[in-house]
Amino acid sequence: MIEKLNELKKILSKIADLRYAANVLDWDQQVYMPDDGDEERGEQIATILEISHNLFVSDEVGKLLMDLQSESIDLDPNSNEARLVKVTQRNFNKETKIPVNLLVELSQTTTMAHNAWVKAKTNNDFNSFQPYLEKIIELTKQKAECFKPFENIYDPLLDDYEPGMLTSDVKTIFSEIRPQQVELIKSISKSKQIDDSFLKRKYDPSKQWQFGIDVARALGLDWKRSRLDTTEHPFTTTFGQKDVRITTNISETIPTSAFFSTVHETGHALYELGFSPALRRTPLSNAASMAFHESQSRMWENLIGRSRQFWLYFYPKFKSLFPEQLSNIDLESFYKAINKVEPSFIRTEADEATYNLHIMLRFELEVDLIEGRLKVEHLPDAWNEYMKDYMGIIPPNDTLGVLQDVHWSAGLIGYFPTYAVGNLISAQLWEKMHEDMADLDDKICNGDFVELLSWLHSNIHQHGAKFEPQELIQNITGNRIEAQPYIRYLQTKYKDIYQ
Amino acid sequence: MIEKLNELKKILSKIADLRYAANVLDWDQQVYMPDDGDEERGEQIATILEISHNLFVSDEVGKLLMDLQSESIDLDPNSNEARLVKVTQRNFNKETKIPVNLLVELSQTTTMAHNAWVKAKTNNDFNSFQPYLEKIIELTKQKAECFKPFENIYDPLLDDYEPGMLTSDVKTIFSEIRPQQVELIKSISKSKQIDDSFLKRKYDPSKQWQFGIDVARALGLDWKRSRLDTTEHPFTTTFGQKDVRITTNISETIPTSAFFSTVHETGHALYELGFSPALRRTPLSNAASMAFHESQSRMWENLIGRSRQFWLYFYPKFKSLFPEQLSNIDLESFYKAINKVEPSFIRTEADEATYNLHIMLRFELEVDLIEGRLKVEHLPDAWNEYMKDYMGIIPPNDTLGVLQDVHWSAGLIGYFPTYAVGNLISAQLWEKMHEDMADLDDKICNGDFVELLSWLHSNIHQHGAKFEPQELIQNITGNRIEAQPYIRYLQTKYKDIYQ
Repeated sequence: MIEKLNELKKILSKIADLRYAANVLDWDQQVYMPDDGDEERGEQIATILEISHNLFVSDEVGKLLMDLQSESIDLDPNSNEARLVKVTQRNFNKETKIPVNLLVELSQTTTMAHNAWVKAKTNNDFNSFQPYLEKIIELTKQKAECFKPFENIYDPLLDDYEPGMLTSDVKTIFSEIRPQQVELIKSISKSKQIDDSFLKRKYDPSKQWQFGIDVARALGLDWKRSRLDTTEHPFTTTFGQKDVRITTNISETIPTSAFFSTVHETGHALYELGFSPALRRTPLSNAASMAFHESQSRMWENLIGRSRQFWLYFYPKFKSLFPEQLSNIDLESFYKAINKVEPSFIRTEADEATYNLHIMLRFELEVDLIEGRLKVEHLPDAWNEYMKDYMGIIPPNDTLGVLQDVHWSAGLIGYFPTYAVGNLISAQLWEKMHEDMADLDDKICNGDFVELLSWLHSNIHQHGAKFEPQELIQNITGNRIEAQPYIRYLQTKYKDIYQ
Repeated sequence: MIEKLNELKKILSKIADLRYAANVLDWDQQVYMPDDGDEERGEQIATILEISHNLFVSDEVGKLLMDLQSESIDLDPNSNEARLVKVTQRNFNKETKIPVNLLVELSQTTTMAHNAWVKAKTNNDFNSFQPYLEKIIELTKQKAECFKPFENIYDPLLDDYEPGMLTSDVKTIFSEIRPQQVELIKSISKSKQIDDSFLKRKYDPSKQWQFGIDVARALGLDWKRSRLDTTEHPFTTTFGQKDVRITTNISETIPTSAFFSTVHETGHALYELGFSPALRRTPLSNAASMAFHESQSRMWENLIGRSRQFWLYFYPKFKSLFPEQLSNIDLESFYKAINKVEPSFIRTEADEATYNLHIMLRFELEVDLIEGRLKVEHLPDAWNEYMKDYMGIIPPNDTLGVLQDVHWSAGLIGYFPTYAVGNLISAQLWEKMHEDMADLDDKICNGDFVELLSWLHSNIHQHGAKFEPQELIQNITGNRIEAQPYIRYLQTKYKDIYQ
């Protein structure tokens, strides 16, 4: 058995290398590539992914997995080896069940759809994008059908990002949380509004940059294993266990934008840098799920980065960099300003209280589209109705509405719910962390994140993708993913801020 | 036949993509990678090169080539198709004749040897490097033996960089040029020496950087298809026909260093950017040889970049950037200073008059080592004797002598002569260019490089690796590679400068 396992690992290590290589090529394309390099870079990434795919779905891997399935029954089911076989088998099924020509058609369609979406968004012209989205929905349904039987046709799509999670799980949680978040926003809107005008002054980009670098280091990011660059949309990418990079986007007049995105991506990077070396170059050297990934980024960004404790330590440093812009602004005013709640059209700019509602809306629409209850042509109307219901505002055009996100043009259907589920997980972990570490808040007040990061590392990061998300959260907290901790968090926080 | 050719091209295009991908990974490693990424990056590049090698030396490619050999006899032998088959067959023979275990042993040895060389150079300790170099020489001999029969055991090594060129060709040319270069240096050393002290003042790095960018653009480098970064050792790397990047190294007190290396690399980049689109993603989308590559870089750097005509146009611009450093310095003094001749220990810092002698010395030693006439333990003494003979100086230690270059530790034996041969080719081309373009010097005086670049493109760049170097130079000039044009060039230039 050891021999077969080593054979499998040898193939998987090559696949891991190719994935990292494709990530480097993609990162370079977004960060440094000269304009004309686009087309050839696309070919190169496609070649690498094709070779990687073929290496994986080979008869050799199929045979090894079949043998290992039967030979590994005596292993501890929680051992790295047993989990490696299990997860690899799962991925193998995923990659082999979909016919190659369907994958090719999807890939070609999304390539064209992306350009169509960019134009449609620019021109506020949903009609021109509609046929592409219709094709994507149709092909995505076909993809999902490959995984019959299922409880809901949306399940296999969700499963790509949240292994083992069901549409019904998400529906249950969302229907619990939605009315409470809607209620919260209504009562906030009746309170006295917060002044955040001083956050719209000019803040020197190079000082913003240096502050981001310094805070990320203080949070535990080792710059010998990471680097920061600028891109239009911030992201984190992984080239190995010792090279995980983040990007940010600096706006001179919105200093919070670059700062919180740097902290957000730092959260992703700390997760990716924390996988156990024993899992290196295997599919287990990955996050447990996209929601778990998001639980890390949003915990650092929001639960930590937008807390009073955090700024008790960092605000004096921030103010010393920008004494003019922040003269007369005390910690409390600053704290309130960075936590201002305001229903808005754009998801990526949403505050903590409204963010999940943006996600729920997309989830409802996606499920309706995939189940066939909603036609693409009626999507803009449906979008606007949900916006009115959930947040009381209607976008003035589709560019600020249904066309705002890149995901659907890229065929990423099933992805959106992970953002909200990530928020929920972050609050569940947060309660447990406070149970385990009585002085957690004091430590944050002192800018000391060592124990906090160590807790995340031993409970979450090191395990990589060994456990499915529901299993992992249960191991840590004793419960499956639930809504109430996040609701409690929001209510406590905003009761304090808005009284 | 068309079908088989297309099949072959499909495989070759994947191999090209993988080569470009490996180049991106290597570039990133040298330019931006965080410190700790080293080990994993090595694995990733090794995996890509291994996959690429296996794709190429497959039975499938062997069979396709065999069929195409016989079926392509009716093709025009100068057609892209016939040349593609010929060059691919050549590369296939090269890659399949060497046993895999020898390749692996060489690769492992050079990996260790590199680190040993770095230490040995730092500590001026040749003895610690000696066993590694002995192993490399031994394995390199074994590699060469795979290509029996040959006229000289050094031939197959040289052939890796100069297809079709023989050791005897190089010996003939070098023995013709050496006494004349030695004589030239002697007579220069008796002349009045040039003052270049003003080139050792402080020159603002950001202005140096911008000047390099502007000049490269003026020479014809399209920054939509290239970019400049800084590395310890400047280099050019290729990610496709529309993405070729260069690097430079800026020293505040040696402004000529960054400038001439930027122009040098620009010459390499213009070559790589000029391959015909018809050759894209094939082995023909490459330089004809390393000497031809060097002929381009050194033509732009020296024949153009160190000419009076060039600075007639650019010196006023340069002086306006650095008015203090260059006050009182007229064009003529500047021109002489950047062409000062001085025997020195380090090849990469050598002037035009002494450079080839550094190369000839290495060539003599390499041939002696490979033919077995010289033992590695006697190499430092042999080095110093040649230095005394050729340039009249002896390095005070091995760090400034036999240990200065990285090549031998990397197993690059057969590479050095291409630097000098490149100089010779550049002068041959230069004479022909003056025949073809009567107003070439006037154009350079006016900063107009359009026709010059167009000549290089149509005569050299576009052909890529279709022709072997001797064939290509003969097509252009009617002669094989010869020494006299370069001698004429040096004598005319330095007679004028040193009288």
